[in-house]
Amino acid sequence: MLREVQEIPDVARRIVAGVEAEIEPVARAIRDHPPRWATIAARGTSDHAAVYAQYLLETRLGIPTGLAKPSVTTVYGSSVAWDGGLVIGISQSGQSPDVVAVIAAARAAGATTVAITNETSSPLAVAATHTIGCGAGPELAVPATKTYVAELLVSAALVAAVTADGDLLAAIGAVPAALDSTLEESAAWLETAEGIGAVADLAMADRALVVSRGYNLATALELALKLKETVGLFAEAYSSADFAHGPRALIGPRVPGLAFRPDGPMGERLDATLVDLASDGVPPYLIGGSEVAGRPRALSLSAGLPEILTPAIYIVPGQLLVEATARHHGVSPDAPTGLAKVTRTR
Amino acid sequence: MLREVQEIPDVARRIVAGVEAEIEPVARAIRDHPPRWATIAARGTSDHAAVYAQYLLETRLGIPTGLAKPSVTTVYGSSVAWDGGLVIGISQSGQSPDVVAVIAAARAAGATTVAITNETSSPLAVAATHTIGCGAGPELAVPATKTYVAELLVSAALVAAVTADGDLLAAIGAVPAALDSTLEESAAWLETAEGIGAVADLAMADRALVVSRGYNLATALELALKLKETVGLFAEAYSSADFAHGPRALIGPRVPGLAFRPDGPMGERLDATLVDLASDGVPPYLIGGSEVAGRPRALSLSAGLPEILTPAIYIVPGQLLVEATARHHGVSPDAPTGLAKVTRTR
Repeated sequence: MLREVQEIPDVARRIVAGVEAEIEPVARAIRDHPPRWATIAARGTSDHAAVYAQYLLETRLGIPTGLAKPSVTTVYGSSVAWDGGLVIGISQSGQSPDVVAVIAAARAAGATTVAITNETSSPLAVAATHTIGCGAGPELAVPATKTYVAELLVSAALVAAVTADGDLLAAIGAVPAALDSTLEESAAWLETAEGIGAVADLAMADRALVVSRGYNLATALELALKLKETVGLFAEAYSSADFAHGPRALIGPRVPGLAFRPDGPMGERLDATLVDLASDGVPPYLIGGSEVAGRPRALSLSAGLPEILTPAIYIVPGQLLVEATARHHGVSPDAPTGLAKVTRTR
Repeated sequence: MLREVQEIPDVARRIVAGVEAEIEPVARAIRDHPPRWATIAARGTSDHAAVYAQYLLETRLGIPTGLAKPSVTTVYGSSVAWDGGLVIGISQSGQSPDVVAVIAAARAAGATTVAITNETSSPLAVAATHTIGCGAGPELAVPATKTYVAELLVSAALVAAVTADGDLLAAIGAVPAALDSTLEESAAWLETAEGIGAVADLAMADRALVVSRGYNLATALELALKLKETVGLFAEAYSSADFAHGPRALIGPRVPGLAFRPDGPMGERLDATLVDLASDGVPPYLIGGSEVAGRPRALSLSAGLPEILTPAIYIVPGQLLVEATARHHGVSPDAPTGLAKVTRTR
């Protein structure tokens, strides 16, 4: 798992280098049949990349976007009028039968279908009209890390290419270097007293709360899943907007809080929830940009990307934190008990 | 909270009686401009009614349906091409500014907009072109119960009216009596050794897993939220299909499992996850139909509704279980610490 996290900058370099050859042709096909809405089908970690892609498509393409409920197709056997839309399947292995079934049904109904997968000859790739490979190389650890970041970057590059957004494409070009500095800064932070304390806190806890909103809601969901599957910690992720509707009752001294706080207006919105999370006297751990510098328990990353691209870098210290917590527990982060790398749900 | 749960059959009777006058005119407006897709905006408990409505719209109207990300509108300020679609806002109080903002933006862009709310002169009702009242009367307890069931039933009745589905409308007519028998059977079960044991189990636990899939995914999400907000239990809900992608690592003897298992093909799909949940030697508590009769720790309800309507009755024993667990803790279920009845997120 650690080695695969360290490969992330190189994975990003390959994606950036392949935008013209791999992603632009798919973007052209989407531009040729402008979709009126979009649906994304995914499970597990890839479903968090789908949450990110939902925000991307709504904010940048300006089309209503939802996440598929595969059982509508696979269990209830309902026909959905997929024509006129863009239906994207995201899967590391490309093997989840229910995700494949949604893409196949959507293609048969006339939708523009795109597979984003690390396995370009997988059933998902075969089912979709267009496929974009993640090019992350074999991922051997059960907890997905580099393929998750690859799915985020491919989604961002696809949206940037469809909208011919030169600024966003240029910013995507800066992501590999941002990942280099993020890896360095994250590893250094984990050696500080605060970083060591964070690992010890998570290792002792049996529950945790992870909060963000907007683009980084995906980051919060993904860190919570990694904490569950890798160290068995009952971590639950929330949008700060949903947090006030009940889950804030869970705040307590034995429940560590973690938050992803980007710079700018979204970060300012999050601040009220950060105050809330500290209401038990213990402030949450923060991962963010320059605006969190100097705050207690904060890892301030210097990368300076626009908020829309920060999910690709903010998850990295989260992945390293999980890996370190697993080692602190004396368990292997690479093959957690009871989990398989490829999960086949129908 | 207990009194409001006991009022649910009467609330359902009022909704059934009002289908022709209240719901049919909105259904006609939707039929007059058949939507190509749908989006639902909601928060908290109402967001679980929205999950149910998403399945309803995809399986019965056959149109792609997603859940809105309000920050796209309220924080990122993006314009979304809402015209040609159906955009529904669901809110007990009708006051959440972000849900209101999505409906206002969608109406301005030319979408068909519908408010489902218990407060028919609320900002949400004013923002939408069409409003359907839940008619649940004042809800005083902070944890929503009767308004949740009302939101489910209004959604089902709206979809049945749009599709002029006489079978479904007839089945909806049977819901009030099904709620009567469910209330009786649930209260009786809570007096049995198993029911008393379930309350004691939940009162002693600090974590729990709640599982279902399809229409009753909403029921699992809603029970988990009620356990969080009312008794501070870290309960997390999953689709059985997502459960295998990581969260199954959380199964353990001190983590009670609960599952909603409808009769029929969906129930059969769920059985593998129920075996999984029992892999620590402790079977999950089951709430379901005739097929769970005789299974350990099962509450088998006699109501016999089609699966599509079971969310309106399966949540009732869940609400009573939460209420009894709060009393076992010696806390008031009506006004949990730190939560407000009306939550205003932006």
